[in-house]
Parts: sequence; structure tokens; C-alpha cells
Amino acid sequence: MASSAMETCKSEDLHMQVDVEKNAEDVRSQWVLNAPEPPSPWRVVADSVRKTISHYKQKFSSLSDQPCTTLLMSLLQAVFPILAWGRNYTATKFRKDLLAGLTIASLCIPQSIGYATLAHLDPQYGLYTSVVPPIVYAVMGTSREIAIGPVAVVSLLLSSMMEKLVDPASDPVGYTKLILLATLLAGIFQTSFGLLRLGFLVDFLSHASIVGFVAGAAIVIGLQQLKGLLGISHFTTKTDIVSVMKAVWEAVHNPWNPRNFILGCSFLVFILTTRFLSKKKKKLFWLASISPLVSVILSTLLVFLTKADKNGVKIVKHVKGGLNPISIHELDFNSPHIGEVAKIALVVAVVALTESIAVGRSFASIKGYQLDGNKEMMSIGLTNIIGSFTSCYVATGSFSRTAVNYAAGCETLVSNIVMAMTVLVSLQFLTKLLYYTPIAILSSVILSALPGLIDVNEAYKIWKVDKIDFLACAGAFFGVLFASVEIGLLVAVVISFSKIILISIRPGTETLGKLPGTNFFCDVYQYPMAVKIPGVMIIRVKSALLCFANANFVRERIIKWVSEEESEDDKGNSRTTIQLVILDTSNLVNIDTSGIASLEELHKSLSSHGKQLAIANPRWQVIHKLKVSNFVSKFGGRVFLTVEEAVGCKSRC
Amino acid sequence: MASSAMETCKSEDLHMQVDVEKNAEDVRSQWVLNAPEPPSPWRVVADSVRKTISHYKQKFSSLSDQPCTTLLMSLLQAVFPILAWGRNYTATKFRKDLLAGLTIASLCIPQSIGYATLAHLDPQYGLYTSVVPPIVYAVMGTSREIAIGPVAVVSLLLSSMMEKLVDPASDPVGYTKLILLATLLAGIFQTSFGLLRLGFLVDFLSHASIVGFVAGAAIVIGLQQLKGLLGISHFTTKTDIVSVMKAVWEAVHNPWNPRNFILGCSFLVFILTTRFLSKKKKKLFWLASISPLVSVILSTLLVFLTKADKNGVKIVKHVKGGLNPISIHELDFNSPHIGEVAKIALVVAVVALTESIAVGRSFASIKGYQLDGNKEMMSIGLTNIIGSFTSCYVATGSFSRTAVNYAAGCETLVSNIVMAMTVLVSLQFLTKLLYYTPIAILSSVILSALPGLIDVNEAYKIWKVDKIDFLACAGAFFGVLFASVEIGLLVAVVISFSKIILISIRPGTETLGKLPGTNFFCDVYQYPMAVKIPGVMIIRVKSALLCFANANFVRERIIKWVSEEESEDDKGNSRTTIQLVILDTSNLVNIDTSGIASLEELHKSLSSHGKQLAIANPRWQVIHKLKVSNFVSKFGGRVFLTVEEAVGCKSRC
Repeated sequence: MASSAMETCKSEDLHMQVDVEKNAEDVRSQWVLNAPEPPSPWRVVADSVRKTISHYKQKFSSLSDQPCTTLLMSLLQAVFPILAWGRNYTATKFRKDLLAGLTIASLCIPQSIGYATLAHLDPQYGLYTSVVPPIVYAVMGTSREIAIGPVAVVSLLLSSMMEKLVDPASDPVGYTKLILLATLLAGIFQTSFGLLRLGFLVDFLSHASIVGFVAGAAIVIGLQQLKGLLGISHFTTKTDIVSVMKAVWEAVHNPWNPRNFILGCSFLVFILTTRFLSKKKKKLFWLASISPLVSVILSTLLVFLTKADKNGVKIVKHVKGGLNPISIHELDFNSPHIGEVAKIALVVAVVALTESIAVGRSFASIKGYQLDGNKEMMSIGLTNIIGSFTSCYVATGSFSRTAVNYAAGCETLVSNIVMAMTVLVSLQFLTKLLYYTPIAILSSVILSALPGLIDVNEAYKIWKVDKIDFLACAGAFFGVLFASVEIGLLVAVVISFSKIILISIRPGTETLGKLPGTNFFCDVYQYPMAVKIPGVMIIRVKSALLCFANANFVRERIIKWVSEEESEDDKGNSRTTIQLVILDTSNLVNIDTSGIASLEELHKSLSSHGKQLAIANPRWQVIHKLKVSNFVSKFGGRVFLTVEEAVGCKSRC
Repeated sequence: MASSAMETCKSEDLHMQVDVEKNAEDVRSQWVLNAPEPPSPWRVVADSVRKTISHYKQKFSSLSDQPCTTLLMSLLQAVFPILAWGRNYTATKFRKDLLAGLTIASLCIPQSIGYATLAHLDPQYGLYTSVVPPIVYAVMGTSREIAIGPVAVVSLLLSSMMEKLVDPASDPVGYTKLILLATLLAGIFQTSFGLLRLGFLVDFLSHASIVGFVAGAAIVIGLQQLKGLLGISHFTTKTDIVSVMKAVWEAVHNPWNPRNFILGCSFLVFILTTRFLSKKKKKLFWLASISPLVSVILSTLLVFLTKADKNGVKIVKHVKGGLNPISIHELDFNSPHIGEVAKIALVVAVVALTESIAVGRSFASIKGYQLDGNKEMMSIGLTNIIGSFTSCYVATGSFSRTAVNYAAGCETLVSNIVMAMTVLVSLQFLTKLLYYTPIAILSSVILSALPGLIDVNEAYKIWKVDKIDFLACAGAFFGVLFASVEIGLLVAVVISFSKIILISIRPGTETLGKLPGTNFFCDVYQYPMAVKIPGVMIIRVKSALLCFANANFVRERIIKWVSEEESEDDKGNSRTTIQLVILDTSNLVNIDTSGIASLEELHKSLSSHGKQLAIANPRWQVIHKLKVSNFVSKFGGRVFLTVEEAVGCKSRC
């Protein structure tokens, strides 16, 4: 009797426990169903606009209750960070910056002349671009290591796109005007990206595609240097490898002067040797930094003494000296090409920002501080706007010179000012000395900077981690190499975004099983120890969206899978009918009307075969839309907080 | 003593329990870290190709061990489903099909002539297209309700795109040849979509954009009918509302003949009244179906008797009668326009399939059977290929006639055969009677079919459920109305895909809290009862991908959020420092190199502020890539199976 009573009691206990559990489950289902409404898309957009506005408002309002002078000072400090860090500036720091500045100046002078030639501009424009932009950036920028000035990829991009509009050989003045206009527009674009907080535009070029693009551009730039290195007069204006090799082939098969080649190659070997030595011994890094300048001086001296220019060695000849001339009057907004120049400026603006922010971020990360992308964009943009008024073309942070700046121990952006001053002095007093500089040496200087741009290790790492990323990398590389610089960029962007779309339109699906010892349900392939629940099929779609592009695919896949699951069990003679299909929607962030329609069809199709559909862990937007479209009531409201509770519903249903 | 011993024991017990739990957790962390390698992308692609091949292989191999005749029969049945369902065909079914077939034939004849006019073809081409395609589809198709033939949207699309290549007024023969060529190419595209199992191409037009597109097209088609209804001779070839209204305005301000208009309108009122009546009384539905034919007969008789054609009422005049002529010799593959025709054919192929599969699916779902999208594509494709050999233009499943077919009680595709035979008989014997049919009546017939295409309720439902979906719907609608049919389609596709990309590049992030009474962590905004864990910040990214397009955004957002969380608590005077940031990666399906780089920067940035990063529930691809890129070892291996276990790590760390 007693034991029977106890059993009854136990059974009642059990009942009560089950009831409590069931109640708790019901309560939790209600939590899911009665969640507050998510913010509407309008509110999300409005919030984002409000945030951008309040970002500026906050900056001002936080200052408004302070005295006027402090207010002005804070405002000035926000615009010109140099006012903040300049107050803690010490002599020790200056010593380091002076050394670093002189080191990058010695690298910068030959590079600037070379990159100006690459951009089909007169050499002095490269030097101008190394004077004003570094100074402007120094007072406005937030990075501490970036060395500003002309860079190879941007120079190539500008010339390859701009020479389709105006031929730099026949109309150099008109060409230069368009380049200055493009610089102004690029600066305006960059500044507005920063003001509108559109930092994400820079992210459209994925890391992988930048690696491929820069490597391809480096090879294209190297091929362009064959013109100077071989002393060829007539060269192709195309940049793809096939055209260039054809032009070189033709030039080599005509009578040519090997003196340029011998001169260029010997100094290239010299520069590369010093680089090799400085890599072996870290203390000798300055050797690599000054070797380009040493090469220029030595070769100029050599040509001057041997009168090699009379024997076919091509020389720079006249370089216009003096301060940066004002160029506001040369900006021609009535140009018939203004639309196309704006397009070019947009591409150049994004590429220049990408390079600068990438290099700035990587060094900031080494030194442990954050770089504000939007502020950076504004700084670079204003740098280019002011640059375009003072005969500069597009400047940005240079990979190679920034690395040298860091290695030389720079402390602040003062090293940029030192560099600019050094270049200014050279422009004022030393341009006449550049008369006899052989063009082949400039080619050698550019060529020597290229190996650093081809990062085979990184490409291998990308291959190892993500094959589609590598495809974008290879696409950019071969696009630049065999088509053109713009096509390379386009290929990279298209492949990168295709991947996002592909994953959305063809999402994988996975079956879940219960991990032993937990109430946790996981992909049975990822966790082979997970156990499937008999009679229940738990499916999760590997996508954040159930939308027009994948809803039918997912529906068909689920129906096929359920029927396969049943027939598979058929072979093993232990036919289990699936009674319940649980859709784990935990990773579905959103759903659209096609997605809901497809769920409705799935529900109909399953119930016509006597199976039930349950939904576990729907997210905010998803459950809201399912409720609004009345789907929840149509399919019987089998919505649960967790997969476990949905499984529990099987016994009750 | 005893109590102390017990306490020790208890504490040991506790220790042991903690140890066991910790062990279990460690074991589970190992499960996460030692998951088998996920299949590589190559294998996924190879598997998908293999599946397509094996799909066909399986079909054949499953038959190969059967006798030759069975094999042949099964093969034939797979290609021609009529052989399967035809064997169960009964007289009862035929009676129903006969009735349905005659009903849709009476609707089909005036519609076919009207749509041919809309496509700028001679009237007989519309009738031809209602003979061969329905028969071909009847023996091959898998739907039971679809009524095949010319449809309004496809006719409009064809003429609006094709008349840019050849002017149908000045070179009707050349124009017709190009239309036939486009029909053949569209058929070939459709068949290959089916063979290559590219059913998803149809999904590129989302449900919402179809609703908008069809409504816009209906209005454009209606506006085109003003030409016939007003009896205008010179009309614009453009389809946008502005051009058409301008043309109508000009025509109305010149002397015009109101007889066409009065005739057309009165019969339009008649047709709409019968439609209204039949909606009130379901039994009278046949009234609405035959009223167009009745209108044609009555008005023709009226014109014939009153000789109204002499008084400015425009009539159809000569309609070439007889069987479909063979048109193989008219397919000109050497046409200079072949490339553009192929482009048109591709667009038309997709739109035609979208309409047919959408209408087929919705009726299959009502009757409770599944429609095989790929098989449907092949059937429609072959229908059009054979159609192009027999003077038909692009045919597909018609919205309006399919609905009538269903309402008339059709049982099988035999109703299509009945319809085709009826049209054939009319072609043979009755075309001469069409001589006096007023063009205004054809316009009325087309106009009367349009209201069904404008689904305001559905548009409202879309608005209610998903605002961006509605934007695609409105974009398609206004694009068709104010620009052109192709632009409307393009706008719809672009908006739909932009949404997918937008969600990927600007994903939301959410903070998670623990739901009371569970070990389940949820968005604190969706579940206001969820409790945040002090000192721990649990973050989930609302995206399936952490990639180049969003990695920096997500990183910056998380860092900002963590600092905001700390300063927020500051105000309440109870400053809790966040010690642990848990990234719940349960909905991240994939990650790329930029994503990993961004996680590395996040880890560095957090640890420089003395915070730790932990990752909970990484999915298969994600954990694999984190392992391959050595990130797991770099950040200390704090990878956990669940958020709960990651939270537990805080006390131990």
C-alpha cells in the first residue's frame, strides 16, 4: 500500500514536473511570439542619419559649456591634431624625426621623379607632390608613421586612364591640367567620404584583391620601366603585358643603344645589394634607404664626366626648379572631359584611400593605437584639395616610404615635415644638378621598390585559408596584367561581391543532432558525435536571409532531404517515418515575402504527407514578419524558443 | 569535527563537480577544435556537378536492369508524361476537359489576335501560337492546369525590345523573322536551363518585383490599347506613360473619329459587367469566359451590317487562314542582329518561365502536387523551339486563361489539346469572318484582361511585411511605367540584390543576455526579460559572413560598443569593467581573410585594454579557417561550444 502510495505520489510529482516544464515551455513560446516590434527600416535609416548628425553635434555640444578659448582650442585640436600632440613634443623626439625625415627624403626624391614620369608628368610635379601634401597631412593626419607623397599604383592608374582622354605626348599642358583637376576632384570625393562617414567604401576592395591588384600593378609598372631601362623612344601607351612585350620585342629588334641598359642594370644591382645587406643586418637599414639617392648622384656625375648623353644615354634634362607654383587658375571646370575626369577621380580616390588606410592601420596596430578611418579620409582629401592648388598630383600614404619611416624610428608626423623641407631645398637649389641624371637610373629606382609590392607569402596564405578569396586575388592580378588596371580592379570587386551573392542564393543546409551530455543541437557533420532524434528532422539553413533568391531552392532541398532520410532508413529495414520537421532559424536574420511564401508551401507540402513543421529560435525580424503575414497562425503556431523544446513538442503533438 | 569533515567532504564534492564540469567543458571545446575538415570549395563544386550528372545516370541506371520495352516505356514516360497519366484517362475526365477546353478557346481566340497586335505581328501569328504550343506542352508538361499560348507581358516585352532593331511598320517580314528567331533562341535557353538544372535563374525575379512589374506592364499594355480604342493611325513606338499620353493628347487634338471609341467602350463595359456578374455568382463564370468571343462576334456583325468601316471604324481586314505554315527556312542565323536578338531572347526566356512557373506552382499548390521546375523549363523550352518551326512566337503559361481553365474544372492537359483544336478549326474555316472585326474590340478584350494583373492587395501585403521588398515592387512598377519594360526589370533585380548586399555590408550587431530559467542567450532587445552578465559583453553579428565588406565595420562597432557599455555604467556610478567579450559566432557561416585579419585586430585592441576575447559556437567553415590561419593559437584558444561555457570561462580566466 505504502509503496503504491509513494508511486502515485512519484507519478504525480512527475506529472507536476512535466506540467511545470510544459508551462515553462509555453511561457517561453509566448516570449518568442510576443517579442516587441523590431524597429522599422525607416527608423533604422533615420537612426543612422541621426547618429551621423549627432556625432558632430555631440562634439560641439560637449564643448559648448566650456569657456570660449577652450572651445576654440578643442575645435582646432580636432581639426589639426598636431596642436594636441605638438605640445608634448620634445627634443629627443625631434632628433629621431629629423633622422627619419632625412632618410625618407633621400628615398623620396628619386622616387618622386620616377613616379611623375610614370604618371606622364614633368619630373618637378613629383617633387612638388612631396612638398605640400606631407606638410598638410602632418598638421591634420592621425597616423604617426605614414609618409605622404606620390605613389606608384596611383601614378600608373592616373596615367593609364587619363591618356585615353588627352595624349600626354602631344598636349602635355592639357594633360597636366586634367591631372590637377582629377586631383582636386579626388580630394573632394575623399573629404566627402569622410564627412558622410562612408568609410565602408574603402572596404569594397577586399584584402585579397588588394594583394593581387598591387602585385599585378607592380609587374605592370616594372614593365613600363623597360622603356627607360632600354632607352626606347617609341613605346606603347597600353599597360597590359602583351602590348608591352610586343613593343619591347620590336624595340630590341631595331638598332638600340645598350648603354642605358648597362647603366640602369648596374645601379639596380647596387640598390638591390644594399637592400639585401640591410636585411641581413638591421643596423644597416639606412644603407638601403639612401642607396637610390646615391645611385642618382653617382650616375649623374658619371654621365656628366663621360658625356655619355652624347652617346645615346637618355637624360632627364631640364627640371623646373623653385617653389610649388600656384595652380588654381589651371583647374578647368569647363573641360569637355569633366564627367570622365570625375569618374577617374572617384576610382583614384578609393584606391589612394585604400592604400593609405591599409598602410596606416597596419602600423597603428603594431604601435597599438587606433586609426579613425573617417578622419583619415578627410585629412587625405584636404591634402589633395590643397595639393591641387599648388601643382601637386594625387598624394597618399606610400607603402615603401612608410616602412622606411617606421624603421628609421620616426616618432611623429614631424618626419614628414622634415622630408618636405628637404625636398623643398632640393627643388630650390639642386634641380639644375638633375640635368644629367640618366632616365635609366630613375627606372632602376622604381624597379627596386617593386619586389616589396609582390607578396607571394600573403597570396599563399590566402590560398590556404579561402579559395574564393584567392580567386579574387588572382582575378585582380591577371586582370591588371592582361587587360588593364581598371579591369583588374573591376574583376576583383565583381568576384568579391559574387561570392556574397553566391552564398546567399545557394546556401547549404545542415541536419542537426543532439550533442551527448548537453541540450545543444549541432551539425551532424561538424560534430560526428551528435545524435539524430528518431522521427524528427532538424534542419538549419546556412544563410542569413531566406529570400526570393534562395527560398525555392531551400524549400525543394528540405522536401528532398526529408524524403531521402525516409528512404535511406528504408534500406536498413528500420523505416522511421519523419513526423516532425524542425527548422532551426537561429541564423536567419531576415526573411522576405518570397521566403514566407516558400515556408507556407513547405508547410502545405509537409502536412499533405502527414508531417508537421516547427520553427525554433526565430530572430527578431523573422518572427515579426511571420506574425504580420499571419503565417504563425496558419501553420499552427509551433514556434519554440529552442530546438530542444521543439523536439519536446513531438511527443505532445 | 563531524560537521567540519562533512563540510570538507562537501567542498571536495563541489570541487569534484566543478572539475567534472570543467573537464566536460574542455572535452566539448576539443570537439569544437577537432571537428573534421569541411569539404573544400572544389569538392562542393565537383559534388554539385556530379549530382547533376548522377541525376541523369540514376534515372537511366535504375531502368537498366529492366527489360528493354519497360526501359523504353519509362524513358518515354519521363519525356512525355502524357503516356503516364493518359493511361488512366477516363471519359468523365474528358467531359470536364472538353468543357474547360472550349471555354478557354473562346477566351483564347480574341486574346491571341489582340496579343499578336501588341507584339506588332499579323493577327494569325497569335492564333498559330495557340495551336502548336498547347499540343506540344500537353504531351510534355507536368502541370495539369496551365493554359499555354501567347501572353500579354511577353508580347509587350518582345515588341518593345525588337522594334529598336527593325521597324515592324516598314519591314514587317524582317521583323517577323527576328521574332521567330528570338522564339527559337528563347526556347533553346529555356531547354538548357532545364537540362543544366539552372532553375534558380527564375528566382532572380523576386515575388515582389514580379507583382510590381506585372502591374506596370498591365498599365503600359492598357495605354497601348488607346491606339486601337481611339482609332489613332500614328502612334508612338515608345511604351513609357509620358510618351504615350503625349501621343494620345496630340491625336485627340487632331480631328478624330469617336465611333471606334464608343464601340470599344460599350463592349468593354459589357465584358466587365459579365465579369462582375460571374464574380457574384460562381456558377456564371462561363459568362465572363465567353463574353470576349461574344463581343467579337456581335461587333463584327454590327460593323458588317452598318458598313461602319466606311465611316472610319478601323477593322482587322485580311487574316491569313489555314494551318500553321512551316517557318524553319525563315530562321536567319546570319542576321546582323543575332547578338542582340539572343539578348532579347534571354530576357524573354526568363520572364516567360517566371510567369509560367509562378502560375503553375500556385495551382499545383492548390491541388496539392509538386511541380518540377527543371522539367517545366525543358517542356516550355521545347514548346517554343517547335513553335518557332511552325510560325509561332513565344508561348508560355497565361495567368488569365489558366485561372479560367481551373475554374472551368479542367482535369488534365487535354483541355489544352481541345483548345488548340478549336483554334485550328477557326483558323481553317473562320478567319474570313474576322475581316470586319473592329480593332477597338480587340483593344477592349485586352483591356478587360488587365485588372486581374494589377494586384493591389498583394502590394499592400508586401508593404506590410517587408518595406524593402515593397521598394523593389514599386521600382519595377515605376520603372516599367516611366522608363521602359527592360529598365523596370533591371530596377527590380538591382534593388532585390542590393538588399542582399546591403545586409551583408552593414550587418546589425546585438548584445545577448541570459533568459531566466534557461541556459539560453538571446538578443536583449528581442527578449526584454534577458539578463546581461556583469563584466561580460556577449555580441552576435547579424550576418552569415564576416568578410572584407563588413569586417572593419563590425570590428569598429564592437570596440565602440564595449567602450560605450563601460561609460554607460559610469553614469550610474556602478562602473563595471568589461573583462570578457564573447563573440557568439553561431550564425556566421563563413569568414574570409579580411574577416580573420579583423578578428586579429579586435583581439589585439581588446587585450591592449586588458579585456579578453572568446568565441562561442563557431560553425564548421569558420573554425576550420580560424585554425588554418593560426588565429586560434594566437588568441589563446578561447573557443567554446556554447555561450554559457564561454561565460563560465570568465571565472576561470
